[in-house]
Amino acid sequence: MADDIHNNSKFKRKALQVNVAQSMISQYISVGETEMVTLQESHGRTLAQEISAPHPYPHFRRSGMDGYAIRSADTEGCSNDQSIWLQVIDEIPCGTVSDKTIIPGTAARIMTGAQVPEGADAVVMFEMTEIREDEGGSVVGLKRYIEIGKNLTPIGLELQAGELILSPGITISAGEISVLATFGIHHVAVYRRPRVAIFSTGSELLSVDEPLQPGKIRNSNTYMLASQVIEAGGEPVILDAIMDDLSLAREKVEEALHAYDMVVTSGGVSVGDFDIMGDLVRGDSVEMLYNKIAMRPGSVTTAAVKDGKLLFALSGNPGACFVGCELFVRPSIRGMMGDQKPYLTEWSGILGADYSKVNNFTRYVRGKTEIREGVVYAMPSGIDESGVMITIKDSDCLIVVPPGQQGMKSGDKVQMLMLR
Amino acid sequence: MADDIHNNSKFKRKALQVNVAQSMISQYISVGETEMVTLQESHGRTLAQEISAPHPYPHFRRSGMDGYAIRSADTEGCSNDQSIWLQVIDEIPCGTVSDKTIIPGTAARIMTGAQVPEGADAVVMFEMTEIREDEGGSVVGLKRYIEIGKNLTPIGLELQAGELILSPGITISAGEISVLATFGIHHVAVYRRPRVAIFSTGSELLSVDEPLQPGKIRNSNTYMLASQVIEAGGEPVILDAIMDDLSLAREKVEEALHAYDMVVTSGGVSVGDFDIMGDLVRGDSVEMLYNKIAMRPGSVTTAAVKDGKLLFALSGNPGACFVGCELFVRPSIRGMMGDQKPYLTEWSGILGADYSKVNNFTRYVRGKTEIREGVVYAMPSGIDESGVMITIKDSDCLIVVPPGQQGMKSGDKVQMLMLR
Repeated sequence: MADDIHNNSKFKRKALQVNVAQSMISQYISVGETEMVTLQESHGRTLAQEISAPHPYPHFRRSGMDGYAIRSADTEGCSNDQSIWLQVIDEIPCGTVSDKTIIPGTAARIMTGAQVPEGADAVVMFEMTEIREDEGGSVVGLKRYIEIGKNLTPIGLELQAGELILSPGITISAGEISVLATFGIHHVAVYRRPRVAIFSTGSELLSVDEPLQPGKIRNSNTYMLASQVIEAGGEPVILDAIMDDLSLAREKVEEALHAYDMVVTSGGVSVGDFDIMGDLVRGDSVEMLYNKIAMRPGSVTTAAVKDGKLLFALSGNPGACFVGCELFVRPSIRGMMGDQKPYLTEWSGILGADYSKVNNFTRYVRGKTEIREGVVYAMPSGIDESGVMITIKDSDCLIVVPPGQQGMKSGDKVQMLMLR
Repeated sequence: MADDIHNNSKFKRKALQVNVAQSMISQYISVGETEMVTLQESHGRTLAQEISAPHPYPHFRRSGMDGYAIRSADTEGCSNDQSIWLQVIDEIPCGTVSDKTIIPGTAARIMTGAQVPEGADAVVMFEMTEIREDEGGSVVGLKRYIEIGKNLTPIGLELQAGELILSPGITISAGEISVLATFGIHHVAVYRRPRVAIFSTGSELLSVDEPLQPGKIRNSNTYMLASQVIEAGGEPVILDAIMDDLSLAREKVEEALHAYDMVVTSGGVSVGDFDIMGDLVRGDSVEMLYNKIAMRPGSVTTAAVKDGKLLFALSGNPGACFVGCELFVRPSIRGMMGDQKPYLTEWSGILGADYSKVNNFTRYVRGKTEIREGVVYAMPSGIDESGVMITIKDSDCLIVVPPGQQGMKSGDKVQMLMLR
């Protein structure tokens, strides 16, 4: 069992910078299949088609008020002392089109959202009018000049026909759904959610419904990863945890790479005697991309590829596993759905507390964002050893602490990767 | 058809401030039913139980490295010139518990995550050791003092038994799922998603799959609202749009209030001739809470209650409808799921462009957040008339412009309500 650690390949790993590893991976990501869903099912999905306006919007001259459609010229010179009176020649509820034309001296009663009749060039709201009945019907009185275009939304104010509105890769939410419905797009092309197989390795793992045993822990990473995969837009498939058995692991990984779009494992990537995922990626069954990243936590984060499909072997430490998934798995899932910005959003902020841990690797410190007087503060979430699980729930960002000999001080500028 | 608008109740509405209306509504919100879901189904749901740690975490003294469990005292005085050699008396993979005790002069090979054996008080990593085989087995050599507790995570570092970890009303995501799995909580009590019936009113509405017709528009608000309801955690139920017919609307609203937890409508709340929702809430079938809010867009936003259930009658203008849903419907849904912070998160920021529109009502301007050098900028999204639909998709916040005689300038401090 004695190792000559200086000649053993598992100790001699070349550390890549995070961005180098990310761009290495991006070469293996191609946009996946699409499927059609109904508009109502499209919330939260990723658009897979370009949407251009099939017609201008609004597509008719729309009244912005309940009132009277008039000709502006008719109101020239009128004032509190000098009312003008217009013959009301039609009533126009929403959804109907008047066949009358507003000629000088006439007006039409009109509702918000209705089509303004020919001849009219403005709408005056009810509250600025008075009504009288005479033998010929109603007349409406005005005491103020109404400028051309008042309360009248012109055709194409928001969009011209043919204008590009939505591009593939965006996440569909309320605003996008509103656009799709407006243009009658009742079935939408979206990217199929990449199916991501997830399993943990390690003989210490109990399933979540087993009673606790000495020296063992429950398999929490699998469920955490499943949640992260859903958040990224993927469909997690939880597979049984694998005991520390290399040939079994190899078989399970190959099966999963064949059946699913991506495979993510946790555990077994360190330098221990049973670190089977580390052994596996150094073997012939997959092509290793990297097995060390210049980051903490998660320096042992590993990736490999087989038949064009990605295998991510993340650390078994919950904190390291979480970070590895956000930095590498998430952008891979987003990329398969055509997201043009697949990485976590970067913010700049002010470090809200001293952070003394130093390292020659970049550190991704779990943190919480606070906004005070318009300034972004990044507050470290507390103990952030790679093995620590509890602070994940309290974090909405990863604070990027660059490598260096000294820690950072409260008030220093920091880069933040936003988790939500 | 002539109105005496000065005596007509639909023109004489008392405008409430947004926060007054919100607190009025909150009196009608009670926490809803709960249901059990599996851990895997719990992502995105709202927790309905208190979770305290049933045992300390970690629940055993855990090795933080692959290496050797030792007694710190044995390494006192050792240096590069003065190795000490310890007899390796056991090998401890993860998940197993050693029955040996580390006595002076001995060590146990141990893997990351494994239980540290009795007698040991530190772990030294492989990379700091050398191994020799002698007749009695392996001995491990060290050249440095290893302090007590090194690479050893004590019992309860993260959590003591009984410590409160999660409270009802939080949204379950990766970090929470990790906690639940760790403590073996494989079924979770969550709040049932409130079922929210949604319909639009207006004879101008085409269904989303109908061809365009002059003067008519497609019913987009219903789908937009459904998306907002999902985002808030509710379950939308889309009902058929209602033509401008008061008695039909009254019947449909009553049916929906009976069958669902909440009803949201769009359209028909202005002062026009066919504003049936406005007429309906002024009638006897429901108890009106308010029908005017001192805000733009959406001043006609209306709420009523019947048999303890809330009816929100929102403006038919897309922008006003969107804002009304975020300010009133969303917190009602969140409140029914025990969320202690049901309202949109408030941020402070710097207005990124002049905003010249003024009003005697508070204005909720759709905007986009930009972070520059750690400072939050709120950029108005463009045309934000209440009838405008297109900018909803480009917005991640509502910029709060207080009532006043003059507009706001680029560089002014503003309050923002965060949409995402």
